[in-house]
Amino acid sequence: MLTLLPRVRAGVSRTHPSRLVVRSTPLRAFLSTLPNSISGLLDFTPAEPVENVKIDGYVRSVRAQKHVHFVSLGDGSSLKPLQAVVPVDKAEGLTIGAAVRLNGSWVPSQGRGQSHELHVSQAIVLGPSDAKTFPIQKKYQTAEFLRTLPHLRPRTPFNSTVLRFRSEIIASLTSFFNARQFIQTHTPILTASDCEGAGEVFQVVTEHERTASAAHPAKPFFRRPIYTTVSSQLHLEALSQALGNVWTLSPTFRAEQSDTPRHLSEFYMLEAELSFTDSQSLVMDLVEDMLKYVASDLSDSKVVGELLNPLGDRSPDLASTELVSERWRGLVRDTWPRITYTEAIKLLVTSDIPFTHKPAWGEDLRTEHEKFIAAHVGKGCSPVFVTDYPRDIKPFYMKAAETDSGVSSPGATVECFDLLVPDFCEIAGGSMREHRLQNLVESMRVHGFDPTSSSESHSQASQEPVNNLDWYVDLRRWGCPPHGGFGLGFDRLICYLTGVPTIHDTAAFPRWYGRCDC
Amino acid sequence: MLTLLPRVRAGVSRTHPSRLVVRSTPLRAFLSTLPNSISGLLDFTPAEPVENVKIDGYVRSVRAQKHVHFVSLGDGSSLKPLQAVVPVDKAEGLTIGAAVRLNGSWVPSQGRGQSHELHVSQAIVLGPSDAKTFPIQKKYQTAEFLRTLPHLRPRTPFNSTVLRFRSEIIASLTSFFNARQFIQTHTPILTASDCEGAGEVFQVVTEHERTASAAHPAKPFFRRPIYTTVSSQLHLEALSQALGNVWTLSPTFRAEQSDTPRHLSEFYMLEAELSFTDSQSLVMDLVEDMLKYVASDLSDSKVVGELLNPLGDRSPDLASTELVSERWRGLVRDTWPRITYTEAIKLLVTSDIPFTHKPAWGEDLRTEHEKFIAAHVGKGCSPVFVTDYPRDIKPFYMKAAETDSGVSSPGATVECFDLLVPDFCEIAGGSMREHRLQNLVESMRVHGFDPTSSSESHSQASQEPVNNLDWYVDLRRWGCPPHGGFGLGFDRLICYLTGVPTIHDTAAFPRWYGRCDC
Repeated sequence: MLTLLPRVRAGVSRTHPSRLVVRSTPLRAFLSTLPNSISGLLDFTPAEPVENVKIDGYVRSVRAQKHVHFVSLGDGSSLKPLQAVVPVDKAEGLTIGAAVRLNGSWVPSQGRGQSHELHVSQAIVLGPSDAKTFPIQKKYQTAEFLRTLPHLRPRTPFNSTVLRFRSEIIASLTSFFNARQFIQTHTPILTASDCEGAGEVFQVVTEHERTASAAHPAKPFFRRPIYTTVSSQLHLEALSQALGNVWTLSPTFRAEQSDTPRHLSEFYMLEAELSFTDSQSLVMDLVEDMLKYVASDLSDSKVVGELLNPLGDRSPDLASTELVSERWRGLVRDTWPRITYTEAIKLLVTSDIPFTHKPAWGEDLRTEHEKFIAAHVGKGCSPVFVTDYPRDIKPFYMKAAETDSGVSSPGATVECFDLLVPDFCEIAGGSMREHRLQNLVESMRVHGFDPTSSSESHSQASQEPVNNLDWYVDLRRWGCPPHGGFGLGFDRLICYLTGVPTIHDTAAFPRWYGRCDC
Repeated sequence: MLTLLPRVRAGVSRTHPSRLVVRSTPLRAFLSTLPNSISGLLDFTPAEPVENVKIDGYVRSVRAQKHVHFVSLGDGSSLKPLQAVVPVDKAEGLTIGAAVRLNGSWVPSQGRGQSHELHVSQAIVLGPSDAKTFPIQKKYQTAEFLRTLPHLRPRTPFNSTVLRFRSEIIASLTSFFNARQFIQTHTPILTASDCEGAGEVFQVVTEHERTASAAHPAKPFFRRPIYTTVSSQLHLEALSQALGNVWTLSPTFRAEQSDTPRHLSEFYMLEAELSFTDSQSLVMDLVEDMLKYVASDLSDSKVVGELLNPLGDRSPDLASTELVSERWRGLVRDTWPRITYTEAIKLLVTSDIPFTHKPAWGEDLRTEHEKFIAAHVGKGCSPVFVTDYPRDIKPFYMKAAETDSGVSSPGATVECFDLLVPDFCEIAGGSMREHRLQNLVESMRVHGFDPTSSSESHSQASQEPVNNLDWYVDLRRWGCPPHGGFGLGFDRLICYLTGVPTIHDTAAFPRWYGRCDC
């Protein structure tokens, strides 16, 4: 299954010794011209049988007949298995779950289902499997059951397809941002800034600190309480003031005791920050361009073809391929509607829907409200931007809107947006950041932070910061241009684009309240 | 500074409604044909002056003369600043650190240093700076001092160049692995597996757990102790059994109280796992191919040109550009030597060097020994693989070598390797993994783990794991083919390729013993 491109051979140019040059190079000797993955082999449809085909994989199922066993083989490269016909005398050890190497002829198939099958002349068991105890069975197993086996679950065909899709979307995003000269950054996981207000945090301690008591105090490892990050945004802002436009795809954490299809304790956020702009439209353009790019870029991918194939073997938990295809089309079709929060409230108030929670200006939008907006404004499948929420329900760092549509009090809204998609509601949010020192300090006061140390005088270089957001306020003291950015729930996006109904099934090893087993 | 490519316009094909098609699209209206970064502008060298050039950036220094101020401007896109000539009456607020937008004519320069300069007709201060208190000054400031200001340090020209290089190497690695059909995975940060033996770990607790006592116990958030990961390897192995060849670039953590140029508490590891192979050579080929690819791919990059420019403005802390260029050439030149640990010990024992620690078979190689091997075998700058170390000084998961060169006891060595580079010594290590159930269990016993629960019978599906490596042993029960992989210290690689002498200066927000300030 090893696919290596020709080895890179490079050396030093004689004419320009400081320049490296790449020489052309022969293929590696072991690089076969035959496909070496099941995905590749299934696409290889010669009219005549081809001898000496070798393929590695895992036995998904065995159907024993008198003279031959029909073995279906998977290797993670395709949702569809390979059909192998193994003479009984060569089938020893080909039990469900076993890792095997099969040699044989690739022969046009008489049966239905696949065009060719492998007539096996040699089968080598590389990793035996005790099939009686193997917990992953071909029969339908609930997503909930499979989640109790995170170390084995990726071997189920659909889960491995979702993980391959995850890999492709990472590569696509990397090329999107790279082509636009956004700098990819590694923002920190451990941070002293706990108080963004984004939710409950995990604290990080050493064994000494954990077992410390008043009688036996421990010297703190980091001199102050340290947490796992809830968002990279504040650090991204610092980096955007140095590097220009920046982005990160980074793990973030919440210690919330929620067990919903939308929440994990550890999840990936895609965050980007645009420098030197006061245009919120531009930030929304970037989100829209990015998702349109990814949808277009991946639309030809084999993995996506498998995910959207209505004839595929699909678990009943998943959204229908028809619905998921419509989501993909909704991403690339037309420009997405943008409405203000105030307009959204008007629509909600004047609708005929008997909402459980009565919509009212100044209250956060509930899921039922977001679903209505996504369906009503997005006409079924287009994402919708809702902008300019009331200041009091949004974080301190958002910039006050200059003008306000529909509400009298200026400054009552902030320049921000949520991106709502059908079914899944919010998958991204962004804002312009308050870049003016005095306005930020004032906003912190309004939001209940104590910026005393920050507002009076700058923190002296090499002096200890007085509170853990001093450094963030500092960014405004010296050359802070207007800027804005967004964060997108990466696992939620994968749910949306694959039809997986819960976020627990998009991560390889999901962690949530009560579950972190390996 | 905003660089956006043409917006993606896509829709649904009429003939193939299930297919997405990308339509051609006009450029965005705001996309200027003039360069919009300082890097781009410095490469733009028209023979005649060009009017209406607009550029955003931060004031690095100001030289005031009677009628004009000479302002040097940086924006993170290039090490070299832009030279702007500003009439005194338009220079108000152009203080060091200020974020400004300059409009003017791009004019062939009379002075030395750069071919053109910006004759400014309008200067807008977008983010003022109190230059008197701005801690980042043009004069030389020690790396140690700058590390006390992690939120401002990326604004120094060299640090921002290192961060841009970090971005480019991520993109290059992504394309290397993507082209070879390796699946990029997000391995978990929070894990129940603390006992790989890789070092001290951080524990992750909620506020309730932290303040719990015998009298007031807290219900654990995750039902068991949870740590930040020290390595993605064990989880990558599980994924390789589902997806084939896999890789990850992921944060890892050590709670060690060390303050050396080679250690951080939070750092990035690049790890890859090859499936269905029993060839350690192939794993080393992959490491070598990868680094040769990256060095060739990036050798034409502007950022690398700046890093290796002997005429550049370089801090005295850094390795010389001559030395660093030699490191780059060493990566791409020839095939790297591979010697066994046993051969290395022979070389060390028979050398004339008076080592502080006497080299002896069975003892780990010390830094002084690695430096000798790198210099002696690598002939100055080629990386060197040292393979087949004694079992007793390596982790439990490594596969016993079948044969042994030079030492009588079979099984005394394991199939593993360290990659040594000049000056920096070990930057990567890898091994074949023990894929056979009984051998792994035996190795765990030898290494002092208690695999009792693991060895007797398989862990029942949906039953609680008995110890926190049961799941790893489980992987061997059902279809574990021979496999191997490696881990590379990503921050160390950046040190090596940039000449930055300490790992603290490659991360944007470095964390180490006592330091995690924002």
